[in-house]
Amino acid sequence: MGVCMERKGLLIVVSGFAGSGKGTMMKRLVEEYEGYALSVSMTTRKPRPGEVHGREYFFVTKEEFEQKIREGGLIEYAPYVENYYGTPREYVEKQMAAGKDVVLEIEIQGALKVKKRFPDSVLIFVLPPSVEELYRRLKNRGTETEDVIRKRMSRAAEEASMIGRYDYIVINDGVEESVRKLHSLIEAAHSSPGGNEEFIRGIRDGLEQLWKGEK
Amino acid sequence: MGVCMERKGLLIVVSGFAGSGKGTMMKRLVEEYEGYALSVSMTTRKPRPGEVHGREYFFVTKEEFEQKIREGGLIEYAPYVENYYGTPREYVEKQMAAGKDVVLEIEIQGALKVKKRFPDSVLIFVLPPSVEELYRRLKNRGTETEDVIRKRMSRAAEEASMIGRYDYIVINDGVEESVRKLHSLIEAAHSSPGGNEEFIRGIRDGLEQLWKGEK
Repeated sequence: MGVCMERKGLLIVVSGFAGSGKGTMMKRLVEEYEGYALSVSMTTRKPRPGEVHGREYFFVTKEEFEQKIREGGLIEYAPYVENYYGTPREYVEKQMAAGKDVVLEIEIQGALKVKKRFPDSVLIFVLPPSVEELYRRLKNRGTETEDVIRKRMSRAAEEASMIGRYDYIVINDGVEESVRKLHSLIEAAHSSPGGNEEFIRGIRDGLEQLWKGEK
Repeated sequence: MGVCMERKGLLIVVSGFAGSGKGTMMKRLVEEYEGYALSVSMTTRKPRPGEVHGREYFFVTKEEFEQKIREGGLIEYAPYVENYYGTPREYVEKQMAAGKDVVLEIEIQGALKVKKRFPDSVLIFVLPPSVEELYRRLKNRGTETEDVIRKRMSRAAEEASMIGRYDYIVINDGVEESVRKLHSLIEAAHSSPGGNEEFIRGIRDGLEQLWKGEK
């Protein structure tokens, strides 16, 4: 009547406005805590200086990407500004089977697709502490014109209407604290009944055996 | 454009098998952490030696209880072994309005009723680490006959089929760790989009104003 407590890996989907700091949070999460694997996306866009194949992205041709789609080798994918972006299935499944929580960074439409296909996945939306702070962060990057910043803010306003579809939000008002928060939300997600079916079944079977006096 | 961060109190419903240790966990939770209020149930059963009106229960007559029902003064109630048990609404609402998380201990049927009426409530089911351990705990109480213990185990077997309706489970294999776990699940529940509607609305409005160049 021993109960199997092996922990199933979860699919963790993180989204957030440009400038919310989600990328940094995810990197830190994987560095600071055990048991996580960061999913690497596949894209047809060209690598920027310093970007490494297999680290920032898997850089492939349009033909290779479309081949992957046909093979069913992507969990989700979407075109974005004339390029494809997608999540290779194989790596994710391998890591989850090994008990790792796999963290994906994807935008909202992709996140909702993942949730539909993997109802046990956990959707987390990262928010800035305020609109002023978001504007400041985008401005401080120094790489975008005022016009681009305005476009990002307008996109964020649209995205904000979808936050209700997420499981959790994290307000990023300091990377230290928000990484800790992110980790504890994922811990909580491991406590759902769906993630503990085997354990619950074990208890149930044990109780029934005992009740019938088989023990 | 300041964003209101006032924290809304949550309704936390805890259930679990007899012998799961849920009662002790809840008492410890309220003692060790700030911001909790333990709901006190109303019952028509007679007080046992040592039980205090307003601490273990509000002890009332059948007439008083039925009056409460008619007034809509109970969040949920149920008859159990010729007595009524119920949760007075007034205390719960007052504490939640003051930002406290109110913890209720009720059985499964009551818990599901509460969830229906208060979709933001958080349902937590406490489980023993194993069936053997549950049996040992019931046995060690020394107050129940073997026959009563068997009945409780059979009831637990039935209850186990409903655990999937809960938001979270906690496996109680040590009170210290499981109280910490309980607290962190409640913290996570505060990070749902539903519990942060005002904040999200504030961000959204701020973004729209900025986008329209009103600032």
